[in-house]
Amino acid sequence: MTDAKAQPMRVQVEEYVNDLQDRIVNALEALDPNAPKFKRDSWIRSQGGSGRSCVFAVPPDQDHDGVLNHTTVLEKAGVNISTVHGVLPPPAIRQMRADHTSMPLPDRPEGLPFFAGGISLVIHPRNPHAPTVHANYRYFEITEPVKPGEAGEGIEPKVLAWWFGGGADLTPSYLYEEDAVHFHTTLKSACDLHGEKLYPVFKDWCDKYFYIPHRQESRGLGGIFFDDLNEGPHLKLPEADGLRRPRSQDEIFGFVKDVGNAFIPSYVPILGRRYATASTPEERRWQLIRRGRYVEFNLVYDRGTKFGLMTPGARIESILMSLPETARWEYMTDLGQEGTREGDLVKYLRTPKDWAAES
Amino acid sequence: MTDAKAQPMRVQVEEYVNDLQDRIVNALEALDPNAPKFKRDSWIRSQGGSGRSCVFAVPPDQDHDGVLNHTTVLEKAGVNISTVHGVLPPPAIRQMRADHTSMPLPDRPEGLPFFAGGISLVIHPRNPHAPTVHANYRYFEITEPVKPGEAGEGIEPKVLAWWFGGGADLTPSYLYEEDAVHFHTTLKSACDLHGEKLYPVFKDWCDKYFYIPHRQESRGLGGIFFDDLNEGPHLKLPEADGLRRPRSQDEIFGFVKDVGNAFIPSYVPILGRRYATASTPEERRWQLIRRGRYVEFNLVYDRGTKFGLMTPGARIESILMSLPETARWEYMTDLGQEGTREGDLVKYLRTPKDWAAES
Repeated sequence: MTDAKAQPMRVQVEEYVNDLQDRIVNALEALDPNAPKFKRDSWIRSQGGSGRSCVFAVPPDQDHDGVLNHTTVLEKAGVNISTVHGVLPPPAIRQMRADHTSMPLPDRPEGLPFFAGGISLVIHPRNPHAPTVHANYRYFEITEPVKPGEAGEGIEPKVLAWWFGGGADLTPSYLYEEDAVHFHTTLKSACDLHGEKLYPVFKDWCDKYFYIPHRQESRGLGGIFFDDLNEGPHLKLPEADGLRRPRSQDEIFGFVKDVGNAFIPSYVPILGRRYATASTPEERRWQLIRRGRYVEFNLVYDRGTKFGLMTPGARIESILMSLPETARWEYMTDLGQEGTREGDLVKYLRTPKDWAAES
Repeated sequence: MTDAKAQPMRVQVEEYVNDLQDRIVNALEALDPNAPKFKRDSWIRSQGGSGRSCVFAVPPDQDHDGVLNHTTVLEKAGVNISTVHGVLPPPAIRQMRADHTSMPLPDRPEGLPFFAGGISLVIHPRNPHAPTVHANYRYFEITEPVKPGEAGEGIEPKVLAWWFGGGADLTPSYLYEEDAVHFHTTLKSACDLHGEKLYPVFKDWCDKYFYIPHRQESRGLGGIFFDDLNEGPHLKLPEADGLRRPRSQDEIFGFVKDVGNAFIPSYVPILGRRYATASTPEERRWQLIRRGRYVEFNLVYDRGTKFGLMTPGARIESILMSLPETARWEYMTDLGQEGTREGDLVKYLRTPKDWAAES
């Protein structure tokens, strides 16, 4: 690999997420040197593709059935990378994208080869005052079918369509305004390098994406979310007024790397200052109720999870790694009322705030 | 109410489920006289309808965050009745039915008045050796819109279509063959009164309905499941050979009452002999993992839950009452391997057995 530029984008993405995974796992392990290490699991998908899961889980005999136990900073966490390829019918390919209109795909009923590569992480800390975080950056490609006899070393199939997607969002159980401000401003700084409109548009998209209609609240305090980013026009980034945005494949990959690299500085300092906060059984209870809402969002609405559950041969353990170790559902819970610490959070789940606004 | 026969079916159903709810709650309360009583909650839906939720939940300060605590037989349970009416567009009405082809509905884009009434219950006992159970019996009606001026006391709108649906299924964490046999044979006896083909068809339907494709296993050990039962032909009950089955509305209601009445004898004796079984923290862990699968089925696949989550003004607390108090997700859990007590159950989740077969 002497010249990364010369490599196809799928190779560049694979190298980048591989390195980012290492950096994130190392940063989390450094925060809690006495905890068990992340379990690193490489896997191969028989239908095409491979990946590496790095998962943190406390051995069950140290955990005692969910009872308060602050012996480790993390409760459950996964930092996964994967590259998957295969052939999918166009309707399934369209399922992978947020926007089904602006990027036409060739209509081949027999299906089209696709490639998907990226990183996906969810971190559930143990302490009720330390927020859960999720991030995901991915690259998709649709290519011409390779004709028999044409396949071989060094022959790259023609790329028919490609796009990047991703984002990061913070899900606390208790509101610390300075944490929300820090997380959002760190992501905003990374976005702003590539155009002033990116953060506000992607912040708004994030609030909409992580909304739980049946609860009439957001999963958390948001962050950024984007999809369908390629060199063409983008429905959410109208071209009026000579809008500055990343346009070429290299520019968009540069943007994705910058927001990907912003993950550690956006989150690890927050975890560092919250993980040892004293907490009560009632605060733990509220945290587990919030985790129930996390489960509801992921299983009922999350496009990535639904796509994964429907994909034959998908690795279920990796897809559902996003679920918390423990979640709780109380009928008509008394927690979360207005005027309580729990209610302070709920207020912003119902009405998202512009945390990165200059005051 | 001197002559129940003279009443419209919706009124007869309402009276029946009202009485069944009382009997079930009383039977459960009698089993654990020192436990807190079920919380009885009557509610009214502003868009039309009402119901009564009877919910058992241990006050959180007695529960200590999910730690082993065998002070009550039940951990979380709900026995709910509801009658809901309103106007739905035909696609939403079709969503309520299993079989979208055999029962044509008039195509009125402006929507049709519907009525849905029934009982729905989920019981999650505390002891890992005592199985979770679910049952649901419901009646649907689609009627002609009532023209202005025609509404009034004693005027019943014309019924365009009606059907009954329901079932009951058992979800243990540990296999006790005699429990599975008892549950299935009790239901079979109730079915057999109305035709020999009902139990085998509805048992098979149940196994198929409660299958979790992404886990390649069933939610539990099954029971019976049926839908779309009315006076017309039924896709799953072919008419060949003069099949005996309930055909008139009264006959079908008679069948539904008999299987509904079988609930208490099918389940309460099992709960009675399992709730005090000694258990280990590992058994509790396995139970919580199984409850995670229960959550996965209900949120990802269950038609009733999905219909509820999409219904504007639906009572979320009643719909999600089916979720367990606590659920657990372990990455690549070591529990459930072949040759263990946990694996004994998993075997039958993968390959359903005919528990009511005469040996």
